[in-house]
Amino acid sequence: MPRAVRERQMMDAAVQTFGQRGYRAASMDEIAELAGVSKPLVYLYLNSKEELFTACIRREASALVEAVRAGVEPGVPADHQLWNGLRAFFTHAAENPDGWAVLHHQARTHGEPFATEVAAMRTEIIGFVTYLIGAAAREAACDAELAEREVAGLAHALVGAAESLAGWGNGTPGVSSKETAATLMNFAWAGLENLMNGQRWAPSPGNAG
Amino acid sequence: MPRAVRERQMMDAAVQTFGQRGYRAASMDEIAELAGVSKPLVYLYLNSKEELFTACIRREASALVEAVRAGVEPGVPADHQLWNGLRAFFTHAAENPDGWAVLHHQARTHGEPFATEVAAMRTEIIGFVTYLIGAAAREAACDAELAEREVAGLAHALVGAAESLAGWGNGTPGVSSKETAATLMNFAWAGLENLMNGQRWAPSPGNAG
Repeated sequence: MPRAVRERQMMDAAVQTFGQRGYRAASMDEIAELAGVSKPLVYLYLNSKEELFTACIRREASALVEAVRAGVEPGVPADHQLWNGLRAFFTHAAENPDGWAVLHHQARTHGEPFATEVAAMRTEIIGFVTYLIGAAAREAACDAELAEREVAGLAHALVGAAESLAGWGNGTPGVSSKETAATLMNFAWAGLENLMNGQRWAPSPGNAG
Repeated sequence: MPRAVRERQMMDAAVQTFGQRGYRAASMDEIAELAGVSKPLVYLYLNSKEELFTACIRREASALVEAVRAGVEPGVPADHQLWNGLRAFFTHAAENPDGWAVLHHQARTHGEPFATEVAAMRTEIIGFVTYLIGAAAREAACDAELAEREVAGLAHALVGAAESLAGWGNGTPGVSSKETAATLMNFAWAGLENLMNGQRWAPSPGNAG
């Protein structure tokens, strides 16, 4: 069996074990058994539990970023770009619950070097969303152009909302990825569209705060 | 000096040290010195570094929840309730950056029992936001009543967006709490208002996905 295929089997087994049992509880014995290989072979290929976990984070992060990028179609209207991106994100998280658990829970709760790995992925996704919102705003050619800093803030809000909703969706029986995507679309699109059209919420007189 | 006052000084010093230096790097020596007491006294009052950190999480979580609850005025229109709640949340996070770092970073990245403590606070805040959105929807008496599950999803989206924005705001020089609150208000209110009025986004024909 070629090395690449065997490594992939080990990684699949590792993501499943880390995602379902947690980083600390997962053992190399378990991972080797699930992959159908000997424990020395896992160590030979992937060195240590820490390196194996880091490799899992990187693989799952790349897959998630790739899924979101592939989901967004350039050239369609901004609302459909957002809708496609959200569908791609929530579908990927729902179809890869162990990978999502590795990124969203395990990688963030076991200190360094794992937190830095997942922070790098988050920065990449936020950069991509910032670019999309900025491009949509330029296309709308709104009178009240969105400041670069506000676009960055909006991207952080959108990504934070998506993470939180995916965690809720994956943990709540019967919630589909289409439903979480629609909830976030309804939550986020109207505000973004208003901002692109230069419309802002303002406190009404007498209720100013 | 009464015990309560001394304990408060120690906790203040502990929150500052844990927030700025991180849970692992922080030492009991440092905390005692900053509080102006002897290290044995810190252990006498607060037992261990783990218990001290747990006490810090509880205190900061209560203060944050209390600030948000106090910020929301019952009886004002729904948009002003949201605006007041957001102002209270972002102001508290900006004015207590060490407490925020303890909750948002340290408590979530050092495993148990800390992650459970901060998850309990998050559940409480999401419950409160779920109640507010549900109440606003009932008040709007919209034709298309929001399903309980959708309200829960919206609350998760709003809280996730707020956490992400507060982390960005506290880490970005020159961003005020009023600015982060306004960004999230503009992002979130239009969508919530539309939903309460029974208006949803729908893919236009030809772009359905």
